[in-house]
Amino acid sequence: MGSVDESDKYLLNRHTENHFTAGEIVRDIIIGVSDGLTVPFALAAGLSGANASSSIILTAGIAEVAAGAISMGLGGYLAAKSEADHYDRELRREQEEIDTIPDTEAAEVAEILAEYGVEPHEYGPVVNALRKNPQAWLDFMMKFELGLEKPDPKRALQSALTIAIAYILGGLVPLLPYMFIPVAQKAVVGSVIVTILALLIFGFAKGYFTGNKPVWSALQTALIGAVASAAAFGMAKAVQG
Amino acid sequence: MGSVDESDKYLLNRHTENHFTAGEIVRDIIIGVSDGLTVPFALAAGLSGANASSSIILTAGIAEVAAGAISMGLGGYLAAKSEADHYDRELRREQEEIDTIPDTEAAEVAEILAEYGVEPHEYGPVVNALRKNPQAWLDFMMKFELGLEKPDPKRALQSALTIAIAYILGGLVPLLPYMFIPVAQKAVVGSVIVTILALLIFGFAKGYFTGNKPVWSALQTALIGAVASAAAFGMAKAVQG
Repeated sequence: MGSVDESDKYLLNRHTENHFTAGEIVRDIIIGVSDGLTVPFALAAGLSGANASSSIILTAGIAEVAAGAISMGLGGYLAAKSEADHYDRELRREQEEIDTIPDTEAAEVAEILAEYGVEPHEYGPVVNALRKNPQAWLDFMMKFELGLEKPDPKRALQSALTIAIAYILGGLVPLLPYMFIPVAQKAVVGSVIVTILALLIFGFAKGYFTGNKPVWSALQTALIGAVASAAAFGMAKAVQG
Repeated sequence: MGSVDESDKYLLNRHTENHFTAGEIVRDIIIGVSDGLTVPFALAAGLSGANASSSIILTAGIAEVAAGAISMGLGGYLAAKSEADHYDRELRREQEEIDTIPDTEAAEVAEILAEYGVEPHEYGPVVNALRKNPQAWLDFMMKFELGLEKPDPKRALQSALTIAIAYILGGLVPLLPYMFIPVAQKAVVGSVIVTILALLIFGFAKGYFTGNKPVWSALQTALIGAVASAAAFGMAKAVQG
């Protein structure tokens, strides 16, 4: 068993990184569109059931899309930033432990490998190899003891913008009919049609990209929209009447 | 270096599991309350700026809370279920690879350890130990190659309910003043006060539980609420006027 060629390793890592980011962008789009297609639709449908005008519905809907995009986007950004801070703090702490209590850290490596039925005489050389390579040792502890990956600093902003824009685009779909049809009870019909279509298509695509059965995913996604709008409809009626 | 005592290992794993679940419940509460305190508040504030009555605002607000709770809750539940399905599929695939192409799998283990500067003669015994223990080998590949943890089947429902309930409780806070004060322009003052307070307190608690500076977290959380409501206010004015 020869050791892995350095340039192969470098290429493999780069490929994994790009694959990783594309997957995260898809995940953020899914998060944004899922809520964006569902909540503004349900809110608008609920309000038309309560006899609000298209004008009020549009006002509420657009205000909700703005608020939701910021809550998810800005909230997601700050959460990613604090995860990055958390990673840095854990990194510094782990480095310090390696520097000041290396025997304890070595015992932790032993413990991790022992969990997999590896005997001391078998994992001993691995532990010693790590002890001689402080950078590798640190990376090993971060990944295998703490399960933390180094966050890409660009990702926080990228993630926030992706989710926010996805939410806005998702939210506009059910609201468009209300922009053109002033009678809400008519506009809602258009909204239901375009939104159910959008939910089915999006759900199908989501299933395809996440490796789940696309037809089942399409139906589930449309179902969430239906249940959410039924609940919004019911609550709006309850508050009004 | 003696091997870890079996009963100690069992206790350690159990402790880690409980710690892991408590952390996830806190995370779900944070997710639910963050959006719940922010979006209904901003929606209501935006609508009062557009001169809607407390009645309409309450209708829209409660409908939005219902829709949001279902979108996040049901959406989160189905997402967790599909993650569990994904894990099961990957588990079966990994098991099959171990059964049919063990040499390739062994090479993957070698590759993982080689990344940390461990030489073949050092990781060789570990690879052989894993090869002799198929269950441990499978667990090792799931965790160290794929980075997947076995999801607890109870967690999907628990997570969904936690997020949904947290969102509802968060959303009711800014809406309560509108239930008691029929003139929206007066109710909004009450809503702003209770919500800013709630955001600060919640943000502080969030910072405390996630190990980030609580005061900074409080301010950030209140800031998101302020920006979201400013955006909702602005959009509502734009649509109305």
